[in-house]
Amino acid sequence: MEDKPARILVLGAGFGGLTFCEHFSHRKAQVTVIDRTNHHLFQPLLYQVATAGLSAPDIAQPIRSILARHPNLEVLLDEVESIDLANRQVICRQNTLTYDYLVLGFGGVTSYFGHPEWAACAPGLKTLEDALRIRRNVLLAFERAETERIPANQSRLMTIVVVGGGPTGVELAGACAELAHRVLRRDFDHIDPTRARIILIEAAPRILAQFTPELSESARKQLEALGVQVRTSSPVKSIQQGSITLANGEVIESENVLWAAGVMANPLTGKLGVELDRAGRIKVAPDLSIPGHPEVFAVGDIVSLMRENGLPVPGVAPAAMQMARHAATLISDELDLGAGRAPRPAFRYRDKGSLATIGRSSGVALFGKFEVSGFPAWMAWLVVHLIFLIGFRNRIAVLVSWTYSYFTYKLGARIITGWPPEPSETKDLKL
Amino acid sequence: MEDKPARILVLGAGFGGLTFCEHFSHRKAQVTVIDRTNHHLFQPLLYQVATAGLSAPDIAQPIRSILARHPNLEVLLDEVESIDLANRQVICRQNTLTYDYLVLGFGGVTSYFGHPEWAACAPGLKTLEDALRIRRNVLLAFERAETERIPANQSRLMTIVVVGGGPTGVELAGACAELAHRVLRRDFDHIDPTRARIILIEAAPRILAQFTPELSESARKQLEALGVQVRTSSPVKSIQQGSITLANGEVIESENVLWAAGVMANPLTGKLGVELDRAGRIKVAPDLSIPGHPEVFAVGDIVSLMRENGLPVPGVAPAAMQMARHAATLISDELDLGAGRAPRPAFRYRDKGSLATIGRSSGVALFGKFEVSGFPAWMAWLVVHLIFLIGFRNRIAVLVSWTYSYFTYKLGARIITGWPPEPSETKDLKL
Repeated sequence: MEDKPARILVLGAGFGGLTFCEHFSHRKAQVTVIDRTNHHLFQPLLYQVATAGLSAPDIAQPIRSILARHPNLEVLLDEVESIDLANRQVICRQNTLTYDYLVLGFGGVTSYFGHPEWAACAPGLKTLEDALRIRRNVLLAFERAETERIPANQSRLMTIVVVGGGPTGVELAGACAELAHRVLRRDFDHIDPTRARIILIEAAPRILAQFTPELSESARKQLEALGVQVRTSSPVKSIQQGSITLANGEVIESENVLWAAGVMANPLTGKLGVELDRAGRIKVAPDLSIPGHPEVFAVGDIVSLMRENGLPVPGVAPAAMQMARHAATLISDELDLGAGRAPRPAFRYRDKGSLATIGRSSGVALFGKFEVSGFPAWMAWLVVHLIFLIGFRNRIAVLVSWTYSYFTYKLGARIITGWPPEPSETKDLKL
Repeated sequence: MEDKPARILVLGAGFGGLTFCEHFSHRKAQVTVIDRTNHHLFQPLLYQVATAGLSAPDIAQPIRSILARHPNLEVLLDEVESIDLANRQVICRQNTLTYDYLVLGFGGVTSYFGHPEWAACAPGLKTLEDALRIRRNVLLAFERAETERIPANQSRLMTIVVVGGGPTGVELAGACAELAHRVLRRDFDHIDPTRARIILIEAAPRILAQFTPELSESARKQLEALGVQVRTSSPVKSIQQGSITLANGEVIESENVLWAAGVMANPLTGKLGVELDRAGRIKVAPDLSIPGHPEVFAVGDIVSLMRENGLPVPGVAPAAMQMARHAATLISDELDLGAGRAPRPAFRYRDKGSLATIGRSSGVALFGKFEVSGFPAWMAWLVVHLIFLIGFRNRIAVLVSWTYSYFTYKLGARIITGWPPEPSETKDLKL
């Protein structure tokens, strides 16, 4: 053990990065976490900000206040530009830092599968800005429909297409249906929001492919009960402003195409010079280190790793947290014993189950061989998310506030911000 | 009485516009309220959004949901471009509407007293976007100070100057002091936020000129107890990015100059062709109608009207609501009896008192000749604002949520949104 504490850099304050920091909160090491935003984002609830159920601060917590109590944990608001593995340096826009250990946890971004031009007309849902943009667009579309006199235009404005039948797409489609069919129901004079069409599009034969076929079918029925049209085996051919074209040639007219179909690793992984998979994720060694760099670990959505059963470790919060704990244990053992004294154990993912919510009181859940759907699944989803929130925020008070907001959906955050644009920006914009 | 219901247009869904609509919710008239945003903003609490105590949706309510239950009240999201008084037409960006009666309630905007160039470096506080911008700038300034190594730069980043010693400026300065000195206190490693300077600048000899000299002095002491430096008799000479120069030549280096010094009427009043005062407010007839246009009324912050005691009716929410009720009563009487049957009574402002809060548990209040300061004044402020909120939102549940948010300040909305800018915007920006 050296006298000078080891210097550990953590890139990204997501579930992985923060879990890693918590492990080191009482250990002798100088840990700096770098993030481009000042907050940890509780991404599993992002779709509720997009559909006006929660306000942005409800699901975001300042990183500094999470880690404030620990003097050996430092927070830096900065943007990583490149990483020099050979010289153990991280180059940010404002600062350049060196490290003894490096933990990469900068997560994923929306992937359009080689069609970046779709981003302009089909926003993804990965950041608070994404969510606020979707909220603004969807609420403004109903406002425009209210004054629109041509039925075809009105219908196009009142059609929401969600692309991607994974948990995010299912949750987003369900919440959109509730927003249009229930929350906005009585608000307009010239349109009937209950006639809004919500269409969920999935390329594969069934939605929620990581669940069992029975649960996928149950999810479809629950979505349909909320008024969502579910189209499976329907790959997207192209997306333009105002419409989406399916592979079979069908054109759906919609001013609200939302993209929940793909995630890839943050493009920073491409600058590392290490082997990546097709989604830009790092092919890590079994101990989660980067091949050839035992001092660098990757955790969370940027990791490409196969489980013993031949399936990949999924890009979900529990996996990121488990990886972070694994890396933290390895590093702290080496700090105690000296590097290279013992062989490093391989990371093993423990699947604690999968959950997806469909609207306010239904959902599907899979715990091992135990399948649940409907209200019990929704209760399970609620409990699990509340436990996660406690872990991070550590205050019952927040829990009460958040639960309250959740149950009072109709009083929620139906506020269009960033609108109207400032006079100087208005020229090219239409209401 | 005619068979066809009268068509009333209300421009602006502020305190005046909404109060007017409520009066007509059960009367025979077709009322359309036009606003450029989709929400009513509870402006008295805007400073708490700016200082991260509340999130934007906490103080904003969708206009549609406020008025949803009344089929004769219509809501239109649109921006008024001009008003043709002669032809009784309102021209908006999307629509042109005609009226039998018109109620102007589009409120005020920030005034820089002939120095529009100050807007870029000294944001005002009139809209949600203003508040979110101030929050972003102030929180980012502390982040920049954390990594700044030059003491003079660090000090400039950690200095907040609030210009204007009226209620908004006093409340903003007090909240800034609490944010820096209490909320952020333990969050940073390299700076000590308790050493941040908060300076309140006022051109007149005392702050809160509409209160008594004793209460002004009390407010000054309460602000100083929070760590705010109060500079009276200090007119501003100029404002540049990074500093503000006073009339006496003194230069205060600050990256956070906030403007709470002036309000003028929305520039739309200038297009009416009627007589205005220096602040662009309409010189209305005693009944609040526009001279020569008995079918057009003005309410709220765009009204210039003297009271019997020689003082102007102040630009506060209670005045706007009283004016709106006056106009609504006049119009509904005329709809019942026919226009011109009876002389119109003059509007009389009933001053129910003035309140200002200073931080979390102090303030000043003046009710007639009854002066209060400190904690009792703060309690009075709280009760009055809660009563207003009930009036508008009409749900105890919202009250509970809001009170909760208010008391749990430290768990509040310290989230920087709109940052970092999208890659395409980053070129000219510095962190």
